[in-house]
Amino acid sequence: MTDQDYMKLALELASKGRGKTSPNPMVGAVVVKDGEIVGKGYHQAAGKAHAEVNALADAGKAAKGATVYVTLEPCSHYGKTPPCTKALIEAGVNKVVAAIKDPNPLVAGKGLRQLAEAGIEVRSGVLEEEAKELNEAFIKYITTEQPFVILKNAMTLDGKIATKTGDAKWISGPESRKYVHRLRDELDGILVGIGTVLADNPRLTTRLPEEKGTDPTRIVLDSKLRIPLDYNLVTQKSEAKTIVATTKEANRQKIDKLEELGVEVLIISADSQGRVDLESLLKELGKLDIVSLLIEGGSQISEAFLFSKLVNKVLYFVAPKIIGGRDAISVVGGRGVNKVADGIIIKNRKISTIGNDILIKGYPEYRG
Amino acid sequence: MTDQDYMKLALELASKGRGKTSPNPMVGAVVVKDGEIVGKGYHQAAGKAHAEVNALADAGKAAKGATVYVTLEPCSHYGKTPPCTKALIEAGVNKVVAAIKDPNPLVAGKGLRQLAEAGIEVRSGVLEEEAKELNEAFIKYITTEQPFVILKNAMTLDGKIATKTGDAKWISGPESRKYVHRLRDELDGILVGIGTVLADNPRLTTRLPEEKGTDPTRIVLDSKLRIPLDYNLVTQKSEAKTIVATTKEANRQKIDKLEELGVEVLIISADSQGRVDLESLLKELGKLDIVSLLIEGGSQISEAFLFSKLVNKVLYFVAPKIIGGRDAISVVGGRGVNKVADGIIIKNRKISTIGNDILIKGYPEYRG
Repeated sequence: MTDQDYMKLALELASKGRGKTSPNPMVGAVVVKDGEIVGKGYHQAAGKAHAEVNALADAGKAAKGATVYVTLEPCSHYGKTPPCTKALIEAGVNKVVAAIKDPNPLVAGKGLRQLAEAGIEVRSGVLEEEAKELNEAFIKYITTEQPFVILKNAMTLDGKIATKTGDAKWISGPESRKYVHRLRDELDGILVGIGTVLADNPRLTTRLPEEKGTDPTRIVLDSKLRIPLDYNLVTQKSEAKTIVATTKEANRQKIDKLEELGVEVLIISADSQGRVDLESLLKELGKLDIVSLLIEGGSQISEAFLFSKLVNKVLYFVAPKIIGGRDAISVVGGRGVNKVADGIIIKNRKISTIGNDILIKGYPEYRG
Repeated sequence: MTDQDYMKLALELASKGRGKTSPNPMVGAVVVKDGEIVGKGYHQAAGKAHAEVNALADAGKAAKGATVYVTLEPCSHYGKTPPCTKALIEAGVNKVVAAIKDPNPLVAGKGLRQLAEAGIEVRSGVLEEEAKELNEAFIKYITTEQPFVILKNAMTLDGKIATKTGDAKWISGPESRKYVHRLRDELDGILVGIGTVLADNPRLTTRLPEEKGTDPTRIVLDSKLRIPLDYNLVTQKSEAKTIVATTKEANRQKIDKLEELGVEVLIISADSQGRVDLESLLKELGKLDIVSLLIEGGSQISEAFLFSKLVNKVLYFVAPKIIGGRDAISVVGGRGVNKVADGIIIKNRKISTIGNDILIKGYPEYRG
């Protein structure tokens, strides 16, 4: 087995924490001695032990003189748990291989330096790309203090999210819809516009067939505070809260009523058109430890986030169906661009099939 | 080598005739004796020798006692060339394996029966699906007397063929555009609406980098005969003709002028909205030996053909670009359906990448 093989295993272990570690990253670690795996561990949930500590505990005395593969540079500071560098030094390991350095610019490199100073051989950069992708949300959050924004839409092959009458049942297949519920389980927040709320009265909860799952924090963009008090997002039972983002023009009494009903109301600065300023909103959501945000908006919301250059990743579920219609609702509406050349390019695409649908994932590239 | 292996080779040979055999099918043949390939041939162009005759000639005396693999049931009638069954019997072959029976219901099975009556062992149905796909256009044509209709569109990831200002340069990449020129070379006809003609003044010729290619017959849907006399489709030099399909309401003088300039004007019956009736048009084009028709129409034409259930295959070149815009031009416009459940399902999809674009091929399934 090569360094890459051990690191791959560490990455697989790390991903077991998916959806449970926020606002921490997912981390996995493997302890190897004389070519044999003697310990494995991962960060299971925020507040619990770090991956290195779990892997060292699993290895026991065998950790002495071993090599530790870890998907992220070990921490060197006291947080909710003592520094992992301390644990590695005390365990007497010989070598530490990290996939990536800590993305937090304040501490990047510190952990590895501390280990090197203690006489431990260190290396980093093994399966770096894979490790970055695994924690892409965390990396955006820790470097910008704003959530990683994933725009998701289910559309027909002809780019529509509803017919001209507004019918949208069902564009994507059951496998795609299940995938979206798994995303809701894994991500911290889910955002929709008030248009979607008024049209569909959605719950935006996580509904998985096998397990309960965790509801994401629900965020409604509602500049004029139009959300009805008896709608699901206000009245339903959920361990997660509903946040309504509005502007200072919102009716004070309605704010009070919503707050009485358990809804959190965020007053966000308005943009030039009197709507919630999206970047200001993302900053506020970052303060609320929303590391990853799923946008399930309609045509307008998609356009607003994309052309404000605020979307980090897109997920398009394309159903093999054609519904036509000049007045059908397009997946990206709003104003759009005048010239094709000014469009947003989607890079690093991954194309797969899910049930009968095609899933296109990628990363918008913003120029200028 | 198995029967399938030999037939695969015969299919590869057949496809060498692509774009040259219309209105005949593409056919390939392999002569095998004692496990060795002793002859190969294919139908190179309409009017030239059939595949079996070429393969038998290639095999010479070795054909005696051999097995012949052919992608289509040998013909048993005198056409431009004598029947292949006669050639096979005279060559003294032992066995004939066909991929598919002749799709022409008038002669299906006759060739194989004639061979069997002459004491030759016959088999059919080897790589049947592949053989049917290879000649899907011919099969549609021979069974319905109408062209096989391929709808092609280049669109953005958000389902648009132009921005709100009408800009469409360039949605798809150079590899996709080259692919379309190869299609033009291979297919018999290309159809656009007068809207596209007025907007772009296109040439609709075949422009391949390495070779000249063959221009397809150009067909313009032009109910009100608005085509300007000085536009490319009227004035350009091309070995193929331009056909303008209009209705009896068209101006007689304009018809005369167009005809003087070498344009063929087809008067087609009108539909309830006074537009060229599409099915009647396809019947006329069938009479003109247009076996395969590529539609490069805009939003309206796409919708009209799709929802008239006249499209046999779709090709969508999806560029990884988002241009947005409620008023941008959607790939399938027109009226469309009211309910998602009434949309047209695209079956037997093949998804590939071509340059930076995604190519989605499939077959519309019409219900009811």
